[in-house]
Amino acid sequence: TIYVITPTYTRLVQKAELTCAEQLVSEFLALSGLALRWRAQAGTPPGGSREGLRWRGRQQGAWWSRAFAADDDNTYSVQLFEEMRGTQLVSVWPVGLVGGMRYERPVVEGGRVVRFHTGWRPSRPFPLDMAGFAVSLRLVLVNPESRFVGDAPMGFLESSFLQGLVTMDELEPKAEMCTKVLVWHTRTEKPKMKREEALQKQGCKVVECGEQHRDGLSRTRSYKENT
Amino acid sequence: TIYVITPTYTRLVQKAELTCAEQLVSEFLALSGLALRWRAQAGTPPGGSREGLRWRGRQQGAWWSRAFAADDDNTYSVQLFEEMRGTQLVSVWPVGLVGGMRYERPVVEGGRVVRFHTGWRPSRPFPLDMAGFAVSLRLVLVNPESRFVGDAPMGFLESSFLQGLVTMDELEPKAEMCTKVLVWHTRTEKPKMKREEALQKQGCKVVECGEQHRDGLSRTRSYKENT
Ligand SMILES: O=c1ccn([C@@H]2O[C@H](COP(=O)(O)OP(=O)(O)O)[C@@H](O)[C@H]2O)c(=O)[nH]1
Ligand SMILES: O=c1ccn([C@@H]2O[C@H](COP(=O)(O)OP(=O)(O)O)[C@@H](O)[C@H]2O)c(=O)[nH]1
Ligand SMILES: [Mn+2]
Ligand SMILES: [Mn+2]
Repeated sequence: TIYVITPTYTRLVQKAELTCAEQLVSEFLALSGLALRWRAQAGTPPGGSREGLRWRGRQQGAWWSRAFAADDDNTYSVQLFEEMRGTQLVSVWPVGLVGGMRYERPVVEGGRVVRFHTGWRPSRPFPLDMAGFAVSLRLVLVNPESRFVGDAPMGFLESSFLQGLVTMDELEPKAEMCTKVLVWHTRTEKPKMKREEALQKQGCKVVECGEQHRDGLSRTRSYKENT
Repeated sequence: TIYVITPTYTRLVQKAELTCAEQLVSEFLALSGLALRWRAQAGTPPGGSREGLRWRGRQQGAWWSRAFAADDDNTYSVQLFEEMRGTQLVSVWPVGLVGGMRYERPVVEGGRVVRFHTGWRPSRPFPLDMAGFAVSLRLVLVNPESRFVGDAPMGFLESSFLQGLVTMDELEPKAEMCTKVLVWHTRTEKPKMKREEALQKQGCKVVECGEQHRDGLSRTRSYKENT
């Protein structure tokens, strides 16, 4: 089983992001015999604890599972989930469009990770994006002190988590020895809502749209249709 | 058969967008018995002709097919493609996060479209986004003069195409009488590449990455890994 944990929060694009993620999971299930369980963890604070990575820790059968923390706005190739299947401790791979670079990646020599190609603070213990690794849940369980430090300095969240779990030469390179990009750190633009605001400023009578629009888009807000 | 035509062009996020689109198509094929053919039409000019909509026009079997023009950066629910299956002439549905609104949609009364909920120029003949309708290919074929006018004034591309094909009361409302949002006009942020540029400005010796990175990300550019 692979457990995918997605931190997410309410905003205009949320429904769109989660629709895309859900479809990715169905697609993976259709292609592989492997179980994949995906959980959207709502209302996490910005850069928050992402403790969901440990949500299955206390449950049966998690021992041989892998976990992967998937932001809701990244772009994932189905192939990525195939790659992380065999993870023993921590597997790693390139991430596209991250850190001001076309991609960041672990550099592999003789089958082992020897350094990291990164544009920013290469001195960090594990200069990887959150989307760049999966961990065996067993490893997390036998290290009960491991956690995501919510207030880690910027860019050190991944390092603070991995540091106690693994060393660089134990990392397992995936995606053809870290030469293929299968995940992209895309970001979705915050949509401009200026027409909607303009209508409201004009003092339009505001009509509650109610349950008929189950589109997840700010259900608590109301709007006026211009007729 | 549903033909999906995606105008696309080379940029940093292109591979990510097309990966997502391809997976959507596989997912649809896994779920339904229906054929869906998807074509990415590269190198179209900005707001260009999107003539790809007619690419199957001269081919056998296209007569009973439907066509849908899908931008590469929108977010699609698989369900949307189910909705457009039964299109006789032109089917329509809401589009989320478009035109400065939470959504735009045709307003349906007594089973017919009677007006459009839109934040901008409601006087346009068909104030719909490109993602808001599918057409029967038969209709396009029997109207050989129909085309996307590349130089239509902004926001009039859809109107100029639909105007000769259909009238408002002939539109076929889908997505539960246009009350469900199944497609979102999301936009992907242009990623900042400042680290990569900084490395190059420092006069780093530039190393060609060659074919090993088949990630579609500007294959003609070269880069320097910081080691
Ligand atoms: O208050 C917040 C801010 C972000 N996130 C989630 O945390 C992840 C990373 O956030 P974001 O994409 O904004 O960060 P960046 O792309 O800048 O790394 C995403 O899955 C967000 O949905 C969250 O749950 N709560
Ligand atoms: O020079 C261009 C600009 C855009 N597009 C495509 O046309 C569609 C609409 O473009 P864009 O998403 O930039 O427009 P917007 O979101 O502003 O409507 C997308 O599928 C783009 O990939 C294209 O093929 N060539
Ligand atoms: Mn993000
Ligand atoms: Mn777009």
